[in-house]
Amino acid sequence: MSETILVTGGAGYVGSHCVLEMLANKYEVIVIDNLVNSVRLEGNQMPESIVRVERLANTKVKQYLNGDIRDEEFLDQLFSSHKIDVVIHFAALKSVGESVAKPLEYYENNVSGTISLLKSMRKHGVTKFIFSSSATVYGDPEVLPLVESLPTGQTCSNPYGRTKHIVELILKDVCKSSPEWSVISLRYFNPVGAHSSGDIGEDPQDIPNNLMPFITQVAVGIRPELSVFGNDYNTVDGTGVRDYLHIDDLAIGHLKAIEKISGKGWNGFNAINLGTGRGYSVLEVISSLLTVLYSQQFILKIVKAFETANGVKIPYKIVPRRPGDVTALYSDASLALEKLLTFRQSSDLLYTRRRTFTVSLLGLPIS
Amino acid sequence: MSETILVTGGAGYVGSHCVLEMLANKYEVIVIDNLVNSVRLEGNQMPESIVRVERLANTKVKQYLNGDIRDEEFLDQLFSSHKIDVVIHFAALKSVGESVAKPLEYYENNVSGTISLLKSMRKHGVTKFIFSSSATVYGDPEVLPLVESLPTGQTCSNPYGRTKHIVELILKDVCKSSPEWSVISLRYFNPVGAHSSGDIGEDPQDIPNNLMPFITQVAVGIRPELSVFGNDYNTVDGTGVRDYLHIDDLAIGHLKAIEKISGKGWNGFNAINLGTGRGYSVLEVISSLLTVLYSQQFILKIVKAFETANGVKIPYKIVPRRPGDVTALYSDASLALEKLLTFRQSSDLLYTRRRTFTVSLLGLPIS
Repeated sequence: MSETILVTGGAGYVGSHCVLEMLANKYEVIVIDNLVNSVRLEGNQMPESIVRVERLANTKVKQYLNGDIRDEEFLDQLFSSHKIDVVIHFAALKSVGESVAKPLEYYENNVSGTISLLKSMRKHGVTKFIFSSSATVYGDPEVLPLVESLPTGQTCSNPYGRTKHIVELILKDVCKSSPEWSVISLRYFNPVGAHSSGDIGEDPQDIPNNLMPFITQVAVGIRPELSVFGNDYNTVDGTGVRDYLHIDDLAIGHLKAIEKISGKGWNGFNAINLGTGRGYSVLEVISSLLTVLYSQQFILKIVKAFETANGVKIPYKIVPRRPGDVTALYSDASLALEKLLTFRQSSDLLYTRRRTFTVSLLGLPIS
Repeated sequence: MSETILVTGGAGYVGSHCVLEMLANKYEVIVIDNLVNSVRLEGNQMPESIVRVERLANTKVKQYLNGDIRDEEFLDQLFSSHKIDVVIHFAALKSVGESVAKPLEYYENNVSGTISLLKSMRKHGVTKFIFSSSATVYGDPEVLPLVESLPTGQTCSNPYGRTKHIVELILKDVCKSSPEWSVISLRYFNPVGAHSSGDIGEDPQDIPNNLMPFITQVAVGIRPELSVFGNDYNTVDGTGVRDYLHIDDLAIGHLKAIEKISGKGWNGFNAINLGTGRGYSVLEVISSLLTVLYSQQFILKIVKAFETANGVKIPYKIVPRRPGDVTALYSDASLALEKLLTFRQSSDLLYTRRRTFTVSLLGLPIS
C-alpha cells in the first residue's frame, strides 16, 4: 500500500505543485489549508488549485479539508481518522513586508501553528516531518554561496525569516529530545515558474511580494509597471540577486525527501538547500525574459502589455529598497544533488532544468 | 486612582514576591496562574502563596484567576472586564533540564503562550509589557560581565533559554511594528532567597533545578545530600559560577520597571539585567553559607540535617554536568542601577543587599 502524506497549506503555490507531483507518483495525499493566502471558501469546498491538480494528475486527493493547524481539535480528529506516514508542512504566512507590519500574526501562524501541529503528530505517533523552510534563515550572508552548515538566524532582518529560523530551532530540539523523529527542512531559495500546463501557478490575491508574479501581472496588464526595489545594492547592476529555482524542481525535491525520509541516515534534523546554485539580479531576470520573449512569438501574443515583437520591453521603475531585503542570496546546491537526486533522477537535474526554466517563467502555457 | 497590573504566573516563586511588593506599594493587582509548577487547585481557589502574600501585605489582590495564557477566550474575557495598565508576564515553564526532554511543552507554554497574551493585549489596547527574561539569552558567554548590548541567542544551549530568546525577538518585532508599545525585558540572573518573613519562598514540587532550593531541601532533611553538577568547569574551583540576586532586589527591580514604563524614554524594547554584578561558584556559595550558619545559631537549630554547631557541613557529591549548563554567568548590573534605581532607592541598593543576602538564603525565618 502506498504511503499517506498529510500536506498542510497544500492549496498554495508551492503546495499545489508538490501535491501534483505526489499524486503523479501514487501517494495518498490528504490536503489541509486555511486558505489564508487565497480566496476563502465555505465548508470543505475544494479550492480551484486542488481541482486543477486532480485534473492534471487524473487522480483524486484522498481528502481535502478546510482547516487550521492552530486548531488542536481539528488536528486530533484528522490524525485519529487517518494513518499518516509523513507530514509536509507548507502552511504559513509568507510575505516579508507584511511580517514587518504584522509580526504577531506571523509568529502565531508560523511558530505557534507548527508547535501545535508537532504536538498532534507526537500524540498520534507520527514522527516524519518535511518542513518548508527558507534561505532567509541565513540572514544577510557574509559568504556566498550559502551552505547548510553556516550559522542561521543571527542576522535575519525580518519577522518572516525569524519564524522560519525559530521553527528550525524547535525542530532541532524535538529531534534531540526523541530519536524517532526524522525531519527534513528544505530551505527554499526563490521558487518561480509554474507547471508546464499553465493550469496552476502563483496567483497572489494582492500586490505580489515576489518578483515573478509581479512580472507576470505586468506582462498580462494587471499592473502598469514593475517595481524594482532598490538599485543601490552592492551587486553586478545594483539590484538584488536571488537564486531562482523552477517550481518543478522544487516539487521534485519534496518528492525525493518523501522517498528518503523513512530510510537510513535520515534520523534527526536535516537541512537541505533547494536552489540552483546560481544567482541572478532583478535586471538580469528581466533581460533574460526579454531574450525568451523575442524567441517565443507565441508568448508575445499572449502577453498583452508588451508592445510589439520589435519593441518589447518590460516597464519598470526603481523604487526604494524594501525593509528586510538582503543584497544577495544564492545557494550551494550540492547537498540536494548528492542526498536527494542521486538515484532516480539524473544527477544534474537541477542544472538541466535551470537552462530551460526561463521559458516557463511566466506560468503561461507553453508547448 | 492607582494603576492596575495584570500578573501572569503570579503564584510562583518570583511572581509572588513581586505581587507582595506591588501590593505594598498600593497597586491594584490581578493575578492569573495555571499552577503548572505547583499544586493544582479547583476553580479559582487561591493558591497558598497568594493567601500568604495578602496576609503579609495586609491587603487583597483585586482578583485571582486560575487560567492559562494560551486560552484566548479566557484572556479576552479578562481584558474586557478590567482596565489593565501594565502586564507583567512571569508565566512560563522554567527547568533547563526538563526543557531538553520536553521541548514542545516549553515552546508551547513559553512562546505560543506569550504570542497569545500579546495578541489579546493588542486587541484591548494594552501596550505596556514587562517580561520575565533570563540571563540564559546570552548563551555561553565569550566575555564577562554580560552587558545588555551583547548579542543574544547565538549559543543558547537549551530549549528553555531559546524560548526566552525567542520571546525577546518577538517583543522587538512587535515594538518595531507599532510605536505605542513599551516593553521592559528583565534578564534575571539567579534569583535566590525568600521574603524575610519566611512565609513565601521557592518550593518546587519535584527535585529542584536551582541551587538554593536544593540546598534548602538538604538543610531541612528532605534530601540526604546536594548534587553539584560538575567540578571540571574552567572556574575558580571547577564548579559553575552564577550571579545570585536576592529575590527582594528582583521584586524591587520589577516595581521600578512598573513605575518607569509609562514615562519618557521607555518606548520600544528595553532589556535590563537584574543581577548583582558579581559571580560566585557553587562551592563558594556553600562555604559562605557555612560562615553564616556558624554565626547564626538560631538557624542551626532549625536546620535539622546539619550535625552540630561544631561540625557543620553541607553534604554534597559531585555528579556529572547537566546538559545545557554553562560555565559562568554574571551580569554587568550598571544599567539597572542607572535606569531603574536612581530615584527612590539609594543607588547602591543592589550592593548593600548583596552583603546581607546570605542571611536569608535558606528562605527560613530570621530576625
